[in-house]
Amino acid sequence: MLADSETAVPLVTHDDVVSARTRLGDQIRRTPVMRIEAGQLGPRHPPFWLKLESLQITGAFKARGALNSLLASDVPAVGVCAASGGNHGQAVAWAARLLGVPAAVFVPTTCPPIKLRRLADYGARVTVVGDVYEQSVERAQSHAAESGALLVHPFDQPLTVAGGGTASAEFAEQVPELDTILIAVGGGGLLAGTLAAIAGSRTRVVGVEPLTARCLGAALEAGQPVDVEVSGVAVDSLGPRRVGRIAFAAAVAHRVERIDISDDAIRQAQLTAWDELRVGLEGGGAAALAALLSGAYEPAPGETIGVLCCGGNVDLASLLATPRASSGN
Amino acid sequence: MLADSETAVPLVTHDDVVSARTRLGDQIRRTPVMRIEAGQLGPRHPPFWLKLESLQITGAFKARGALNSLLASDVPAVGVCAASGGNHGQAVAWAARLLGVPAAVFVPTTCPPIKLRRLADYGARVTVVGDVYEQSVERAQSHAAESGALLVHPFDQPLTVAGGGTASAEFAEQVPELDTILIAVGGGGLLAGTLAAIAGSRTRVVGVEPLTARCLGAALEAGQPVDVEVSGVAVDSLGPRRVGRIAFAAAVAHRVERIDISDDAIRQAQLTAWDELRVGLEGGGAAALAALLSGAYEPAPGETIGVLCCGGNVDLASLLATPRASSGN
Repeated sequence: MLADSETAVPLVTHDDVVSARTRLGDQIRRTPVMRIEAGQLGPRHPPFWLKLESLQITGAFKARGALNSLLASDVPAVGVCAASGGNHGQAVAWAARLLGVPAAVFVPTTCPPIKLRRLADYGARVTVVGDVYEQSVERAQSHAAESGALLVHPFDQPLTVAGGGTASAEFAEQVPELDTILIAVGGGGLLAGTLAAIAGSRTRVVGVEPLTARCLGAALEAGQPVDVEVSGVAVDSLGPRRVGRIAFAAAVAHRVERIDISDDAIRQAQLTAWDELRVGLEGGGAAALAALLSGAYEPAPGETIGVLCCGGNVDLASLLATPRASSGN
Repeated sequence: MLADSETAVPLVTHDDVVSARTRLGDQIRRTPVMRIEAGQLGPRHPPFWLKLESLQITGAFKARGALNSLLASDVPAVGVCAASGGNHGQAVAWAARLLGVPAAVFVPTTCPPIKLRRLADYGARVTVVGDVYEQSVERAQSHAAESGALLVHPFDQPLTVAGGGTASAEFAEQVPELDTILIAVGGGGLLAGTLAAIAGSRTRVVGVEPLTARCLGAALEAGQPVDVEVSGVAVDSLGPRRVGRIAFAAAVAHRVERIDISDDAIRQAQLTAWDELRVGLEGGGAAALAALLSGAYEPAPGETIGVLCCGGNVDLASLLATPRASSGN
């Protein structure tokens, strides 16, 4: 599943997202949206719509892609496996439990304890391997080859992408007047799914990446997916070294705009989400919100903005123990 | 503002709630609702709708009543004052800051540090006085008498009640098919406001009280508001010793059903809200959810149930440090 320029990149279409929504039905949650008026979360931001996908089952949008993948595949009795910084692993573990098949999940050492505990709660067999995500991927691939288990890729696989896109399809349905959706980009599955979900509409997508994990930015600059160094507050969810081929192709085709955001801005957005909404967001889940609250994203007058908060698996006690900015957001 | 059987009890009507909604406009948040399928938050519960009023400005529904009171009153230049276990105080402090008038807030020693900090953040002058809410009330009353400040009662005042009722009016609008709304009862302001909001509809209201703070239950048994001992996990928000006269009269007139719930069930509901939704709920905010998740409330087959989570001002680090039940709800 590593990038291979010799292989054609699969296309994920609007119809794939529609099929995924039908397939998922009410087995995933229709997460709520909320209107935030100008200045309600800090002194500077415009009015916007927030979609709290962090309230999804397993705490992240990944549940959609994982369940879509399993429901649409012939799952062998030996079960499924995944490599994941945590959220996709939880999603696969949850979906496997729902379907009554075993799940093996391989995670890097950056996986926070809260995600390890939840993986265990879902009944997965968890193996911690390597310091970066790519090492977990290699191990998951060899496990799949040896055991016959179905490997569910976290982002660069059409069923995963289409499943993730159902979050944005919902958002567009809940707020039909959206001009712009801000979303975080890790491996780019949510980005590609969102582009498929809103294909043919006038809504546009802006991708947000931490300066410390900007694999899409680097790929667009290089003209192809390339490896980048990753670190920072969102590395456990936005930390793939290389953007997915599906996402890269979609981003190029749609001329997607993107924004770099600092780790400080992400942390402030996480604190704001708790202080002003009593909602937990992990670093990756708060990146899109950070782009708006920090002013890094500058909307046009009258623009209707949607912010998709994609994950909530935060260690809140640790977050609240960090120093706060002296004022503001 | 103490109960006085010689004084006629004001009536709060559906029109009062409609007026409050108009008055409040978009200065308060339209908080989100979310459908939860059977078993998604634990093994036993039926499907239901959750209204996350804990995402309201100031973290609780109290913002509605406080702002409604200030907007509909002649506020003196000397400002406003309130007695409050915390949430109403925050709401009055926030509303006063919005209108540019000073606020003095009197709280009992049970007020948790997180609420004290937030009161200060809203610019209120805070005085900690007495071990129970009623001592703070006396002090606020004498402050109002001496200074001329407008005393805003947390629950037993028509504008406060009508403002709180807008939360339930919204809920009924967001989910028109609701058969039943479960709400927590402290002083009964939300109960009375909800009864006014849904007057004339087929929706019914069920009040939920902790066994450790059941002033409505005791009043209904005695045939009049009486003082009760209060303690437990929700005492900071549901802890008035005596139910409001408006709420008592409304509860009797509507023959409101009520449920007693244990502190353990409330704590488990708080943990579930965090574990499964990444949402913070204080004890009072989780009481209605606890009634459903614990099985204390037994719905009829096919009943459409709404649970209003009224407050989120929880010290989550402390909550997460408490022991959990050996298995899920």
